[in-house]
Amino acid sequence: MVGAGYKIAILGAGNVASHLLRAFSKVGCSVAVWNRSDGALVALRDEPGVLCTTCMDELPADAQVYLISVKDDAVESVAQRLQQAKGSELGSGCIVAHTAGSLPVSLLEKYFPNCGVLYPMQTFSKDKELDYSKIHFFVEEKSDMLHRLAGCVSEHVHDLTSEQRKVLHLASVFACNFANHCYVMAEDVLRGIGVPFAALLPLISETTDKVSALPPLKAQTGPAVREDRSVMDAHRQLLGDRADLREIYERMSESIIKYKHDNDRLRPEKD
Amino acid sequence: MVGAGYKIAILGAGNVASHLLRAFSKVGCSVAVWNRSDGALVALRDEPGVLCTTCMDELPADAQVYLISVKDDAVESVAQRLQQAKGSELGSGCIVAHTAGSLPVSLLEKYFPNCGVLYPMQTFSKDKELDYSKIHFFVEEKSDMLHRLAGCVSEHVHDLTSEQRKVLHLASVFACNFANHCYVMAEDVLRGIGVPFAALLPLISETTDKVSALPPLKAQTGPAVREDRSVMDAHRQLLGDRADLREIYERMSESIIKYKHDNDRLRPEKD
Repeated sequence: MVGAGYKIAILGAGNVASHLLRAFSKVGCSVAVWNRSDGALVALRDEPGVLCTTCMDELPADAQVYLISVKDDAVESVAQRLQQAKGSELGSGCIVAHTAGSLPVSLLEKYFPNCGVLYPMQTFSKDKELDYSKIHFFVEEKSDMLHRLAGCVSEHVHDLTSEQRKVLHLASVFACNFANHCYVMAEDVLRGIGVPFAALLPLISETTDKVSALPPLKAQTGPAVREDRSVMDAHRQLLGDRADLREIYERMSESIIKYKHDNDRLRPEKD
Repeated sequence: MVGAGYKIAILGAGNVASHLLRAFSKVGCSVAVWNRSDGALVALRDEPGVLCTTCMDELPADAQVYLISVKDDAVESVAQRLQQAKGSELGSGCIVAHTAGSLPVSLLEKYFPNCGVLYPMQTFSKDKELDYSKIHFFVEEKSDMLHRLAGCVSEHVHDLTSEQRKVLHLASVFACNFANHCYVMAEDVLRGIGVPFAALLPLISETTDKVSALPPLKAQTGPAVREDRSVMDAHRQLLGDRADLREIYERMSESIIKYKHDNDRLRPEKD
C-alpha cells in the first residue's frame, strides 16, 4: 500500500485525530495513538494494528511523524509533554506537526527543531466515514515529509504558510460554520409554521450542488440579488421582535447587493 | 402515466416555468406554454408534445390548471391579461394559480373565482436537470386539484396558507440565498491567498450532508460555538478594512453563541 513503511504517532483522540488515524491506517501506515484519558481510545482499539496508549512513554521513538491533534489551547502543553517524554530519543529526520488551521507553526519551534503543520480542511463528525481522497490537505514544513504523507491519502495537498493558513481557516468559517448557522436560523424560522427542517433539504443540497458548477456569485438567487425591496420589507416585518435575525437578514441582504454591484462594475457585459 | 389526462397551461418561460413544464410533461400531462416574447420559448420547442405560443388566445380553453409562473411583479398583469383573453371561456372546474413563494393567493381572487398557489421550494438553474420527485410542493386552494397535480410529480405535497408560505419563503432565503452568500464571502476571503474556491467544495458538501443526519444546531463546529475568543479576535483582525465582512462575522458569531446558550438552557442534559 502507498503508505506502507511510514510510521506515525498521533497525539489526541478527538474527531480530527480519529479520522486521521483511520485515513493513514487504511493506506498502510503503522499508527500509534496517545490520549490523556482512556475514554476516547476505546472506539479506536478495534482499528487493526493500531497501538493505543495513555502513556506517552509507550509511543514509539522511531516514528517519522508525530501529529499533535488536540484542542487548539492544548497543543502547546502536549508539545511540551512530548518534548519531555520523547525529545531526546527522536530521530533527526522525524517531524512533529500539529493539525490546527488557526495556529502558527512557530508554536512548536521552541520544542522541536523539525516541526510543521498538517491541516486537513474538513468538518469531522465522530461516526461518519469520509472519502479522505477528496479532502484538501494544507502543509507547512521545511522538508517534504508531511507532503508525502498526506499524498498517500489525498491527491489534494497544498503548501501554505502559517499566515496563509489563517486566511484559509477564516474562509472555512464562512463556508462551513456560517452556512450551517444559516440552516440553524432557517429551522428556527420554520418552527413558527410547523414545517419540518427536512423539507428544506432538497433546496439545501441543490444550493450546494450549484456551486460546484458555477461561481457562487453567479449562482445567487432570491429577493436581495433581484433587489426586490417589497419582499425584503415583508421579510423584515415577519422577523418582528427577532432583532438578532433581523439584523443578520439586513446585513446579508445589503452584502449580497453590494457584491452584485461590485461584480457588475468589474464585468460590465452581461452573459 | 400518472399525470396523463391532466391538461395544463403555463404562463411564463423562465427557470421555474421551464422546470415545471418539463416535470409535468415527463409524467404525461398535456402542456401548453405561453410567453410574452419568443426568445425563452426556443429552448422549450424541443419538448415532445408541448404547445409553445406567444399569443395568449392560442392557449387551450379546456386546461384544468393555468399556472402563472413569471416574475413576482408581473404576476398580476399576466393574470389580468389571462382574464381578458380567456376569462369567459374557462370551465368552472378549472383553477388559475401562481407559483410565487412570497405572493398571497388574494392577488388572483379579483380575476378568477377559482384560484390558488403551487409553490415548488427549490432553486432552479436553467440547464440543470433535477429530480422533481424530491422537491417539496406547497399548495393553497379551495379544491384539491393542485394537490393532485403536484402529487403526480412529487411525494412531498403540503397544504399551506399564504401567511405560512411567506414564512416558508423567508426560511428558504436563509437556507439557500444566505448560505450561498457565505460561499461568496469565503471565495472572496480565499482570493487573498490564491487558493481556488474548489478547495472548499469537500468541506461545503460535508457541511450539507451533516444536516440531513443531525439537527443543524448539533452539527455546528468552529471557533464561535467553542467560544474560542482568541481565534475570533484573530479573524476579526484579518478582515481588517473589510467592514462589511467583519460586521457579518461578528453578528453570525454572536448569534451562534446565543443559539448554543439558548439550547443549553432548554436541554440542560448533555448527550
